[in-house]
Order: sequence, then C-alpha cells, then structure tokens
Amino acid sequence: MEFEYDGPSMKTEVPGPRSKVLNHTESLYNVGAINFFCNYEESRGNYLVDVDGNRMLDVYTQISSIPIGYPAEFPMFTSFSSQSAFVNRPALGIMPPENFPEKLAESLLSVAPSGMSRVQTMACGSCSNENAYKAMFIWYRNKERGHNIPSDEDVSSCMINQSPGCPDFSILSFMGGFHGRTMGCLATTHSKAIHKLDVPSFDWPIAPFPKLKYPLEEFTRENAQEEARCLEEVEDLIVQWRQKGRPVAGIVIEPIQAEGGDNHATPDFFKKLRNIAHKHGSAFHVDEVQTGGGATGKFWAHEHWGMDDPADIVSFSKKMLTGGFYHKDELQADKAYRIFNTWMGDPSKNLFLAEVLNVIRRENLLEEVTRSGKTLLQGLYQLQDQYPNLLSSARGQGTFCAIDIRDDATRNSILLKARDKGVLLGGCGDRSIRFRPALVFKEYHVHMFLNVFSDVLAEHN
Amino acid sequence: MEFEYDGPSMKTEVPGPRSKVLNHTESLYNVGAINFFCNYEESRGNYLVDVDGNRMLDVYTQISSIPIGYPAEFPMFTSFSSQSAFVNRPALGIMPPENFPEKLAESLLSVAPSGMSRVQTMACGSCSNENAYKAMFIWYRNKERGHNIPSDEDVSSCMINQSPGCPDFSILSFMGGFHGRTMGCLATTHSKAIHKLDVPSFDWPIAPFPKLKYPLEEFTRENAQEEARCLEEVEDLIVQWRQKGRPVAGIVIEPIQAEGGDNHATPDFFKKLRNIAHKHGSAFHVDEVQTGGGATGKFWAHEHWGMDDPADIVSFSKKMLTGGFYHKDELQADKAYRIFNTWMGDPSKNLFLAEVLNVIRRENLLEEVTRSGKTLLQGLYQLQDQYPNLLSSARGQGTFCAIDIRDDATRNSILLKARDKGVLLGGCGDRSIRFRPALVFKEYHVHMFLNVFSDVLAEHN
Repeated sequence: MEFEYDGPSMKTEVPGPRSKVLNHTESLYNVGAINFFCNYEESRGNYLVDVDGNRMLDVYTQISSIPIGYPAEFPMFTSFSSQSAFVNRPALGIMPPENFPEKLAESLLSVAPSGMSRVQTMACGSCSNENAYKAMFIWYRNKERGHNIPSDEDVSSCMINQSPGCPDFSILSFMGGFHGRTMGCLATTHSKAIHKLDVPSFDWPIAPFPKLKYPLEEFTRENAQEEARCLEEVEDLIVQWRQKGRPVAGIVIEPIQAEGGDNHATPDFFKKLRNIAHKHGSAFHVDEVQTGGGATGKFWAHEHWGMDDPADIVSFSKKMLTGGFYHKDELQADKAYRIFNTWMGDPSKNLFLAEVLNVIRRENLLEEVTRSGKTLLQGLYQLQDQYPNLLSSARGQGTFCAIDIRDDATRNSILLKARDKGVLLGGCGDRSIRFRPALVFKEYHVHMFLNVFSDVLAEHN
Repeated sequence: MEFEYDGPSMKTEVPGPRSKVLNHTESLYNVGAINFFCNYEESRGNYLVDVDGNRMLDVYTQISSIPIGYPAEFPMFTSFSSQSAFVNRPALGIMPPENFPEKLAESLLSVAPSGMSRVQTMACGSCSNENAYKAMFIWYRNKERGHNIPSDEDVSSCMINQSPGCPDFSILSFMGGFHGRTMGCLATTHSKAIHKLDVPSFDWPIAPFPKLKYPLEEFTRENAQEEARCLEEVEDLIVQWRQKGRPVAGIVIEPIQAEGGDNHATPDFFKKLRNIAHKHGSAFHVDEVQTGGGATGKFWAHEHWGMDDPADIVSFSKKMLTGGFYHKDELQADKAYRIFNTWMGDPSKNLFLAEVLNVIRRENLLEEVTRSGKTLLQGLYQLQDQYPNLLSSARGQGTFCAIDIRDDATRNSILLKARDKGVLLGGCGDRSIRFRPALVFKEYHVHMFLNVFSDVLAEHN
C-alpha cells in the first residue's frame, strides 16, 4: 500500500447517477440494502471509490471486514502455485493441499488466543458460530454421558430430530447480542427484530447485557452494580433452564456488542462470567467475528481482560478473511465428520491472511490503532462536550469506537450528510454510530474525519 | 485444459509417507477425516496428484465440487481488474462492485431454472439452504397474515425467540435426505446419525423417501406403488403438523438423494409432490447442491422432470463454485436486511463460474456427460450381471451414478483397493459407491475406470 489518496473527493451525491442505473438490476437480485456500487480497482488504503467517481474516507470498511485497507494488488498473484490455490478449491476436510498446515501455522495459528492451539476454518461467520455451538453440544453431551459412545436410542432418535439423540440443550446468549443469521445463530441473536421476525427459534435463555454509563471509569460504582445484576440473572437462568430440562451447554458473548449498539462491559464482568460458565459446567464461547483482528488495539478484544484462560471457544471472520473458530483441546469433536462440510473454509483466504498478518506486524499496526483510537475517542469526547444535546456516551477501545446520537432520525441524517461530504460511516443499535476504520487509519485520518464530522454536527445542532 | 495425463500412476499406497507426516499436524487442526494431502499444482483434468506423487483418476472430485476438472490456470489472473476482485472482498449486499450485475447475468442468471429470474448468492451450501428456509418462512408468514406488517407482539416476542414473532413453522423433509449441517439445515438432514447426534433440533415432519427397485423401467408398477405410499404419507404429515400448530411452510427435497445413498424417484413422483406442496400452500424447495451443475446430463437435475414450474426455490453450491439459491419473485424477502449477511457470497467465485460456464457451452460438456454416463451405466450393468453376489442396483443419470455393494465392509475395502490402483471413489448411504466425476470425464475415462474397477471386484468376489 505505497500510495494513498490525500483526502475525500466528491463529484455527485451518493448514490450517484451511475449507481442508480446499476441498481435497476433490482429485479434480478436481492438488492434492497444496496447503498451504492463501487469501483474497487480505484479504491486504495482508507479510501473507497464509487462508480460515480466519488472518493470517500471509509470509516465503515464493508461492515468492518477490510483489515488493512483497499490494496492495489498482492504479490502472490504472480506465482503459479498461488494461482493454483485460487483455482483448485479443495474439500479441505479430506484432501487439503500440501502447504495447508504450514499456511495455517503462518496465519491463524500465529495469532491463536491464549490457551488454544486448535483452529477450524469455515466459510463465513454464521457457519463458524453454528459449528462452534455444535462442538459445545457434543462436548457437553459426552461430559454428561461420562463417555462418548451413543446408545442405540441416541442413534435412532437423533435421525428423527428427537431426544435423547437430539437433546434439549441450550445456548445462553445476551439481549442485544448478534451472532449471525442462520437458525442456530439466530436463536442467540437479539439485536434487531428485522433479523428474527417470522423465523422459528429455540427456547433458549437470554440474559440482560449490562447497560453501562460512559466513560466507564467515571461510573465505576453504578456500572459494577449493573454488571452484578446481570451476572446474577445469568446464574438464575442457568439454574432455571437446567430445571426445565434444557441445560445450558454453552454461553456465547461478544467482547463488545457491536451490531446491538457497541455496548461495552468491564474485564471484571467477563472474568466473573467466565467463572460462572466454569462453575456450571457450560462452555464459554467468545464471538470475536467483529471485534477480532486488531481494531481494539489488541489482536483479540478479549486480551483486554488480561486472562490466561479467557474462553473455551473463540470464533472469528470478517477482518480474518476466513471464518472459523479456535477451541481448547477438549472441545475437539471426538470423531471425524461431526464438524464437517464440503469446503470447510477456503485456503486461498489463508494465503491472504498470512500476507495481512505480515503487514500488521511489519508496520506495527496495533500500536497505530491504539494511537489513532486515543485521538479518535478524545475527539469524540470534545464533540460531545460541544454538542451535549446531540451526542452522548462516546466510547471505544482502539479505533473500535461509537457514539450515541439524540435519536434514530438524526443519526440517519448525520450518516447521509457525512457520506455526501466524503466520510463513510455505519450505524448500530437504535441510535449509535459505530466507527470501524481499517487498521491503517492513522492520526491524520482521524483529524480529517473529525473535521468533516464536526461540520455535519454543526448542521444538526 | 489443454494437457491431461494419460492414466493413473501409483508410486506408494495411499496415504503415502509424505501424507502421513503431514497428518501429524493433527494436533493443530480437526483432521480426523483427512484421507491424504494433495499437490494441486500438478493435478490436471480428471487426475488428482497427491503429495507422494500418486496420480489418481478422480471419480469423486472433492465431494462432487470440481466442475470441469483440475485446471492449470485461468487467464483471468493476468488482468489487474480481476486481481482486484480477488483482493477486495466487498460486502455484496450493500456495496457491490460495478461489474457485479453483469457477472451475475453472465454466470448464475444465464443458467437460471425455469420460472426463476432471481438469485441470491451465499458463501456455502448450508448457508444457502438456511437462507432459503428463511425466505420460505417469511413468505409463508406474510401469506398467513394477509399482509407484511408485523404486529407489536410479533416484534416484541421475536426478540426473545417466542411465538408469534418466531412462529412454530416447520419444513417437511425426507428420511435419507441431506441438506447441510447448520442447525436449520440439520433439522432436515436424515442421512447418517453421526451428522445429527447430540445437536438440538426442531420437531419437524419427516416423510419416507421412495425405496425404488432398479433399473426403474423394469419395476414401474412396484415403484409407482411405493411412490404413491410416500406421497400419501407426505399429505398426512402436512395435515398432522398443521393440526399440531406447526404448519409446513416448505418442503425440501433433493432430485436424487446423494449423501443418503443415491436414491432416485421418478419425474411423476416429483410432479405430484410439487402439486401437493401447491395444494397445501407450502413452498417447494429443490436442493440441487450436489445434483446441479451438469452431472446428470442436464444443467439441473430437476430438468429431467420436464416441468415449466418445477420449484419455488432451487439452492446450489459445490460445482457452482459459489453457494446460493434461485427463487420465484414471490419468495423475495419483502424488506432489506431480512436475507442478509456481511459477505453474501464471494464475487471472485462468480468470475470463475462465468469461465466454467463458457467451457461447458463451448465444449458441449452436457452432451459429453450424457454420452459418458450411458457408457458408465452400461458398464455397471454388465459388472452387476457378472458379480450378482457383490453388486446390485446400478443406477444413475448422466455420470451421476451409483451401485450397491454387498455390505459396508466390502464397500469400504473396494474403495481403498481402487484407490491404491489409482481410482478415487466415494461412498454414500449404508453400502453404496457414488460416481462423481467432473464434466470432462470422457468415454475413454469411463473405460479406464471400468477396467480398474473390474480388477478390484475380481479380488472381492
């Protein structure tokens, strides 16, 4: 990424005329959500260029999924062996390519969370969580049985979806959480009704996620009380669901609830939650699909908790370019073909990830993120002092920041105005804006963003 | 694919020493199912080369997922704009690349099933089916309501996984069917216990799939009776589940049950089933993840039914290189972000698919498949006449063929022996072998395969 543009440059409103024409293909594709069409060949670094020639500072990065900005090219394409990796997509679970273990070691395993030496790749975030849940169910059932040999009744009943073969286990999740949209994941997603409406679900326990006051360090006492309340509720739910005959095989949580509104909790909360999981024999699954990959200033957001044994399972996707999950040894499925599908990921994505990790290390991007993040949060604090009727609850770790806007309508107006001025942002929760720049977002990008944002706010005050 | 090898060439048993060494990375990865490691750079056309230099005629093709054999390279890598497509993975649902509608038209939409002009891409087969089910639930619920405006109770109850927001709808599936392994899909998968054990499921109806006698044309009367029995059961189940308060929103079926043992049914069965779905107001979902892409001699297996309106939804993956589903207009979700995720497929796979479809057309590969398939099935009939105690029920469409072996142990021994002689095959069901060559499997490959297979059978007689 040698070359980057020197700032936004807007030629039309967004979406511009060319984007609008392309969006007439609506009859052909499910495009209800399409914002505009892009020219990825011209996009570079922190700048996304659209098909009307508008160049925007990208503080949303494809729903937080572009790790190091828009690259011009990767040297890997020149080698024949890499081309082979792109063209010959293997069934990774049965016939992996020769360099797969090596590439796994160079990429995913080189950033494995504390206490985990195993990883399973998957094609996307939802599949990662689905399979992580299955790994927890299998583990829990073997623990409950005391051995891993299913009874004849297990085998026959599971074929017709009935207990005991398909046991009434549950996953405990949190209100406001987002873990994906396939049916297992969706039963643990509680961020917005539009995601869940009309889809059958499971009777699984849902705990309150702490509603904290920001900045966290100014409200330690109230926040500690709120966290204690939620933890108590978690234990109550675990007991209730066990009594109902639907024991909690696992607890799933995001280190920062992202889609649900960038809701934070303290390291103390997560430590206690992890202990509760342990105490009740439930697996502890940390979903780092959005928080993982460096945006919080540490490679994994859970590193901020300072624990040697933070989780039993950590799932990822987005910035990691491939989906998947790390797990402790005991969460390894006991037999082949239990956690399995045809592709099980895509080895070409591991090649990209190895390159991305090299760049992160070489350019000390986690330090960069920490530095930019401080400047960003400081800027948000100042703006919220300046516009107390408009802004509140600035919060963040690294550049993984957010701020609340007076109301939903104002929030949406701000997002559109900022875009027309060349800054691309995303919303989350009811009335928050989330900041999700790439790891190459430097302090001068922060200042550029704050200038535009300040102008937009002035128009809304 | 200019150059191909002239036959298998075996240097070691399989897995060979190099594969065994690599498999010691078991501690790092879930490799319980790994057969051997491959050298994809040396693999060409119908031949898979492993890391020990063994070159095998591939009649399994990565669980039926390689459409036109192992290519040496694709010209697309030389152009900068294509490199951009590989490196810059967009969030397709909100910011697609400029050429996306065009590439979609050139690739997926150019082979859309009869009556369908819409397609939704997804990253894998399971996600495709999960989202297809959601589309059916949304459609069914709006039909039931008479409009698409959820009540306040719908909105609040869905957030906690409860009815009416998360209604008790069901999907009717068939015993022996396979539709994937995420939790929604898994509730409709009934091929092997190992896929389902220990995972919670839904109380959804499961109908018997016809157990027919082969060759179908010799047992038309018995087979018609068996199909009538199954269809009657389908209607009974639909009524029962409606009475239970779990109405059947959709019926899902494979045109040929693949993983479950290559079980066929007649066009008459599928026509009547489609009518039953219509009569009871259920959507009809044809899962072509394994059957689609040309292996039956038609691009979609359901084309053999000769219907103008074969389905409401057709899902695909594997040979199509990207997952996804086609659907009729009325199955389009009524609002944005209902069928959605971050990636929604991978546009680089559409580029490959466009190239693959060009090759299929230019080289008339569907005709090739029909020709090779006839020779293959004829050969299997002859072998089954020759070894009546060993083989039975040879069956197939195009090269999508299978044969039953005396018992599971013999089947597995045959698979291993054939592999050591340089022919790679896969099993399915309890005791079947499934043939899944690429579309470039020509008549002389069939003869080469039959020679080896014949030798292996002679050893087992």
